[in-house]
Amino acid sequence: MTDVGVWFVGARGNIATTAIVGALAIARGETATTGMVTERPPCETLDLPDVGDLTFAGHDIRNRSLRDAAERLEAGGGVPSNDTIEAVADELETIDERVCRGTALNCGPRVRELADGPPLEADRSVAEIVERLRDDYAAFRDRHDLDRVIVVNVASTEPELSNPKRYADRAAIERAIEADDRELPASSLYAYAALADGHPYANFTPSPGSSLGGLRELAVDEDVPHTGADGKTGESLVKAALAPMFAGRNLRVMSWEAHNVLGNTDGHVLEDDRNKAGKLASKGGILDGILPEIDHDRVRIDYTPSLGDWKTAWDYVHFEGFLETEMKMQFTWEGSDSALAAPLTLDLARLLSHADERGESGLQRHLASFFKAPVDVDEHDLSRQLDMLSEYVEERTGERPGEPLPSPEARTD
Amino acid sequence: MTDVGVWFVGARGNIATTAIVGALAIARGETATTGMVTERPPCETLDLPDVGDLTFAGHDIRNRSLRDAAERLEAGGGVPSNDTIEAVADELETIDERVCRGTALNCGPRVRELADGPPLEADRSVAEIVERLRDDYAAFRDRHDLDRVIVVNVASTEPELSNPKRYADRAAIERAIEADDRELPASSLYAYAALADGHPYANFTPSPGSSLGGLRELAVDEDVPHTGADGKTGESLVKAALAPMFAGRNLRVMSWEAHNVLGNTDGHVLEDDRNKAGKLASKGGILDGILPEIDHDRVRIDYTPSLGDWKTAWDYVHFEGFLETEMKMQFTWEGSDSALAAPLTLDLARLLSHADERGESGLQRHLASFFKAPVDVDEHDLSRQLDMLSEYVEERTGERPGEPLPSPEARTD
Amino acid sequence: MTDVGVWFVGARGNIATTAIVGALAIARGETATTGMVTERPPCETLDLPDVGDLTFAGHDIRNRSLRDAAERLEAGGGVPSNDTIEAVADELETIDERVCRGTALNCGPRVRELADGPPLEADRSVAEIVERLRDDYAAFRDRHDLDRVIVVNVASTEPELSNPKRYADRAAIERAIEADDRELPASSLYAYAALADGHPYANFTPSPGSSLGGLRELAVDEDVPHTGADGKTGESLVKAALAPMFAGRNLRVMSWEAHNVLGNTDGHVLEDDRNKAGKLASKGGILDGILPEIDHDRVRIDYTPSLGDWKTAWDYVHFEGFLETEMKMQFTWEGSDSALAAPLTLDLARLLSHADERGESGLQRHLASFFKAPVDVDEHDLSRQLDMLSEYVEERTGERPGEPLPSPEARTD
Amino acid sequence: MTDVGVWFVGARGNIATTAIVGALAIARGETATTGMVTERPPCETLDLPDVGDLTFAGHDIRNRSLRDAAERLEAGGGVPSNDTIEAVADELETIDERVCRGTALNCGPRVRELADGPPLEADRSVAEIVERLRDDYAAFRDRHDLDRVIVVNVASTEPELSNPKRYADRAAIERAIEADDRELPASSLYAYAALADGHPYANFTPSPGSSLGGLRELAVDEDVPHTGADGKTGESLVKAALAPMFAGRNLRVMSWEAHNVLGNTDGHVLEDDRNKAGKLASKGGILDGILPEIDHDRVRIDYTPSLGDWKTAWDYVHFEGFLETEMKMQFTWEGSDSALAAPLTLDLARLLSHADERGESGLQRHLASFFKAPVDVDEHDLSRQLDMLSEYVEERTGERPGEPLPSPEARTD
Repeated sequence: MTDVGVWFVGARGNIATTAIVGALAIARGETATTGMVTERPPCETLDLPDVGDLTFAGHDIRNRSLRDAAERLEAGGGVPSNDTIEAVADELETIDERVCRGTALNCGPRVRELADGPPLEADRSVAEIVERLRDDYAAFRDRHDLDRVIVVNVASTEPELSNPKRYADRAAIERAIEADDRELPASSLYAYAALADGHPYANFTPSPGSSLGGLRELAVDEDVPHTGADGKTGESLVKAALAPMFAGRNLRVMSWEAHNVLGNTDGHVLEDDRNKAGKLASKGGILDGILPEIDHDRVRIDYTPSLGDWKTAWDYVHFEGFLETEMKMQFTWEGSDSALAAPLTLDLARLLSHADERGESGLQRHLASFFKAPVDVDEHDLSRQLDMLSEYVEERTGERPGEPLPSPEARTD
Repeated sequence: MTDVGVWFVGARGNIATTAIVGALAIARGETATTGMVTERPPCETLDLPDVGDLTFAGHDIRNRSLRDAAERLEAGGGVPSNDTIEAVADELETIDERVCRGTALNCGPRVRELADGPPLEADRSVAEIVERLRDDYAAFRDRHDLDRVIVVNVASTEPELSNPKRYADRAAIERAIEADDRELPASSLYAYAALADGHPYANFTPSPGSSLGGLRELAVDEDVPHTGADGKTGESLVKAALAPMFAGRNLRVMSWEAHNVLGNTDGHVLEDDRNKAGKLASKGGILDGILPEIDHDRVRIDYTPSLGDWKTAWDYVHFEGFLETEMKMQFTWEGSDSALAAPLTLDLARLLSHADERGESGLQRHLASFFKAPVDVDEHDLSRQLDMLSEYVEERTGERPGEPLPSPEARTD
Repeated sequence: MTDVGVWFVGARGNIATTAIVGALAIARGETATTGMVTERPPCETLDLPDVGDLTFAGHDIRNRSLRDAAERLEAGGGVPSNDTIEAVADELETIDERVCRGTALNCGPRVRELADGPPLEADRSVAEIVERLRDDYAAFRDRHDLDRVIVVNVASTEPELSNPKRYADRAAIERAIEADDRELPASSLYAYAALADGHPYANFTPSPGSSLGGLRELAVDEDVPHTGADGKTGESLVKAALAPMFAGRNLRVMSWEAHNVLGNTDGHVLEDDRNKAGKLASKGGILDGILPEIDHDRVRIDYTPSLGDWKTAWDYVHFEGFLETEMKMQFTWEGSDSALAAPLTLDLARLLSHADERGESGLQRHLASFFKAPVDVDEHDLSRQLDMLSEYVEERTGERPGEPLPSPEARTD
Repeated sequence: MTDVGVWFVGARGNIATTAIVGALAIARGETATTGMVTERPPCETLDLPDVGDLTFAGHDIRNRSLRDAAERLEAGGGVPSNDTIEAVADELETIDERVCRGTALNCGPRVRELADGPPLEADRSVAEIVERLRDDYAAFRDRHDLDRVIVVNVASTEPELSNPKRYADRAAIERAIEADDRELPASSLYAYAALADGHPYANFTPSPGSSLGGLRELAVDEDVPHTGADGKTGESLVKAALAPMFAGRNLRVMSWEAHNVLGNTDGHVLEDDRNKAGKLASKGGILDGILPEIDHDRVRIDYTPSLGDWKTAWDYVHFEGFLETEMKMQFTWEGSDSALAAPLTLDLARLLSHADERGESGLQRHLASFFKAPVDVDEHDLSRQLDMLSEYVEERTGERPGEPLPSPEARTD
């Protein structure tokens, strides 16, 4: 058996809190694994670390306890239940002690306002921040005698990074760190610190994370798997399932309107247009990928405090069929953001652990179905993305008479 | 070039009328081919008969002219436009002369009420009806010097056939015809008459058509391709696209409510519970196939005259995710039934013509994506069904290094 | 101060349970009075008994405790919360002891299945049942030294009563009781027993209750106020608010489709078409009253177990405006049936107590806004119904320079 | 009989075009008066000028013909039909000759872009513009020998006027005109020109129009009736009908989200945030008026070209009931903006003509139901607003034993 640690960047946030509470409740047999992709075919046949055996820790810029975070979630929408929180309260307290102070460098004022004390960048150079993050990861691994630590970014969305090409190779990033380039975004510092020491990394947010060219080079150099970006959990998931239907039937989508309202921290941070820009870019790619000739594709994200963690979306699709007939479809999605996202972060930790154990490094393209903007993958059709995952599993489990997969990075040449 | 005739059973109905008007308008360059699956990848690379070159004829039990049918459609929903009807009016008149009196045997009282004169069964034995249908097909082929005639059933839904096993082999059916077994349904008589003389047959309705064991045997014997059943055009299409999303994410669907309202002849006929039974069985299979553990799956179909040809559906999906969180999705679909169905009947005629020309006989399983209840296909995931079509095309066009497809019927042994 | 008892027929059902838990929680200051019409203008200015001072009891055919009923409600939808149930648990136990065995005469098999033991009619004549009910009401009043007892019917919907005219006068009903006429419905026996002894009566269900001519005569004879029928809590409430908009703007409603799904006991009982008939008649009256020229008005009620106490409705309105333009409006309502109904039963108890104290007897037409099928009131426009209530209050509080209201019964002559 | 002229400001726009085509079609008996409030109770009993007898003219800054405007409308949504346009084509041409060049002073760049030539302000002082407008009105009246001319503003929404108080009295406005104050908005110049010469004026837009204090004074001085502002035609109309339901039942609305999409000129102009500001202010007042304690009330208006004249809105209402139960209602409205607005402009012209004939001057508060932001009326409950209209009619027709209405202006003192 392999001992696996999951390190959440944004450990006191809604997604991490829900993932931790859920994993602890699963370990106690108090809840089912509904919502976890790795607990159904095809992934369930892989030899993955048990959900109940994962060890949790992380970074955050807030001081509130995990229990407090869980109780606020419950009050704002009912997930998880008070009974569940009560049942795992002692363990939450233990994990609280493992949460280290993080950095919010270039995360924008909305995120900095959340900090309960000075973040790491307050009195450190960029190189010192990176050093500190690496030490935190290492100490966690050593203290708990873990075979590997998977770093999962679930922190708030950062403002869009201007000119990401300046960090297109490893040398450029390392020079920037040395030169105390304070335009480097926090998510990429966390990713650098992880990849440099061989910790697999998953970016569940639209922030740059490990998508910078220099970090992708680093991952290949260090033989470490990574994946991202931006978990596909609600309205975007539906788009990825529905849009291929219009394409497949040669129906011309004239307008696709998407109006999202949500009331949690994510919604509050996205009220700042700078933070919202990254999110919108990420969501926009799905329809462009599947319906390249769409005339009009608008995504709105609005903050509605009373909804708490419930993300509600109304999408209106105006399309044309035979004989220029105009038709309409609309849907309303009402999902708990955390309940949808949390199990996927556990899935990603398990799948990255598996990949790392087998020596599969670089971008894990077969995980595209988890993301709104899968790095280096053009396929946005959800079913085809799920087929990519199935093929991967079949090759690993020997069901598919397969030559070994070509090295992922090799394919980009 | 191959000269292809399309023979519509239900030629004066909404779907056939729209298909004929649309094909004529495409031939004149007055409208685009939006909504036709064969006009986009992958099928557009196949060598198919041009839409504009198809010759039309058919059976019906009504006397109204095609122009009248088209004008009623326009009045009840605007498809096709009056300008388009005007433009093709002369050709419609020509086609009117090719429409022969049909049979409504076992179609139920709602369908018989539509008849403008005695249908064929009024004064004929079953064997005489079959003889007449064969003569009609043959006369059409000969008069227009056609290479082949494709029979497409778009007549109203028949009541469910009790004990279809009694027609499980060819001999049983032929005995029944000889014995004047007046429980044989009209759709299967049309199918028998087609297959017996080598005319490919597509069943766009939930009626039995060519799905009876004896007719499938006949198709293999006579080396003729056929397909069905029940065109997947609206709410069912959305289900086939959406349900895999819930399955793929391990979200547990507790209830899926589907409420359909429509106002055309189809809706009127379905007000009779006997006719509705077949339709509901057909629609129900999709969710059962994709979400085998669904707790509750209701489909309602109601007749709302003011909607005319517009089929409106509200679906409400109640599902459970991580930590037993209950969530909801709902959609409303507003589609013109004829505008959605008509282009698919042209697609099927072209694809069956292609198959027949290449000697591919028996059930055409790769056409599953067109149907709610594809005969002998268990796959209901729309994307996977579309992949079956893509694979077929790639093998035909040589893009896929392929052994020839195994004979479809062989697979059922 | 006046001591008022509220006697629920169906005391262990969802509505009564929620009303009792809510009133107890209000008394403790644990919740607000949101949802109670009597706690806002205009009614808040009336001199009504305090919600916190009401004493509860009732009839039921089930044995489960109120706490158990409340916990099932919580499990099936979260209303009331476990914290609230916990807080009032002792009081619930006290009230449990006051719940007497009831009758389910002519309530249909679905209701009788709910009984945990033989209902009163198992071994009693109709006259004996009535005697017993009167004794139960009287014992409650005496034991708690109450000024008055208000009987509120919140039991399951009964099958429609055939030929209600046979009970058109008091003598006919009393003869039927004496003759052991076992076609008398339970709701009317409860009503007879209440009115005969001067207890005000409210019928929150579509069952006959006090609407029979003979019972209305009895109420006038005995100078006791009564009201009904069928609480207007969800989709019907919206209809009553929206339909006047179409009328007021001279927009022609062609079709109004209403599809209701719910998962509680009410939904289960309504699966029986006999019980459903009464409910549908009641709901249908609203649109007929406001939009007399509507072409098509369908109401469907379906049982969807996973929804528990949540009543979800989709309404689709197809209407015509200027230049024959066809337009559409649709809404989805997602409400907790009990949370919507319970506060209204407390409102009715308070308002009937007030009326009784002031000697206002017979039908209380100014309460029409509470009901889907207000007895003897043709006005279905919600705003106008609320105006009737405002006028009543203004006359009572002297704000409106008013002659006393004419006796309600007098107006029907 | 009285000869009445209707002068549309924005005569070649969608609303005026639809109103004119509709009135002409009604005159010919080609269409019904569905959608006209004055053609049903209570107004139908008033002695109003016949719709078919109205004479039309107006101002615009565009040169396209009315027929062209109508045909574009038809292409973009089907209202009015081509048959109807054809039937009234000659009359449209006659009316085209009566449309004069208008002004777009302070209407913002989006509106000015629509102009087909220099608007009046290009080479005129404000005083000269006003002079010209007065001459245009007078010439129309004289040439057609009209008893009165009603000016109805249906031009595009102007940017919000900063500091409208500077025009709080007649003297201030007249000084501003003399001083060539080019911050005066076009809508108020049209209103000034109308009121100064005794022409009744209705403002169907959110622009300032006659709402400035100085113009209200002018209307009283000149004994001329006027009304406004901002026709209540779609999503706002539904709000005014639904919000009172929540208030009446003491349900606490936490959030009301309103997302509007539309594709006509109005939508294009509202893409400019300056023009949108006035519209949003106007729409926002309805909920504030009916639900003063609402926590969150967002209105979004977005431009979606493919929708043409169809205004689609999704509203999502998150509310709280008994025992803090959170519930939801959502609706989707799909209406033809012009078909909804046009008949109301005819209603207003008829009702203002009636008022003028009877010497009722100043603000016509009983017309509040027509407007989103009725000047000087706090009542936003649609039913109560309709009751105000009913009371007015009953007083005029003698049904209500009534003292004469107090002079409207008197009530504001």
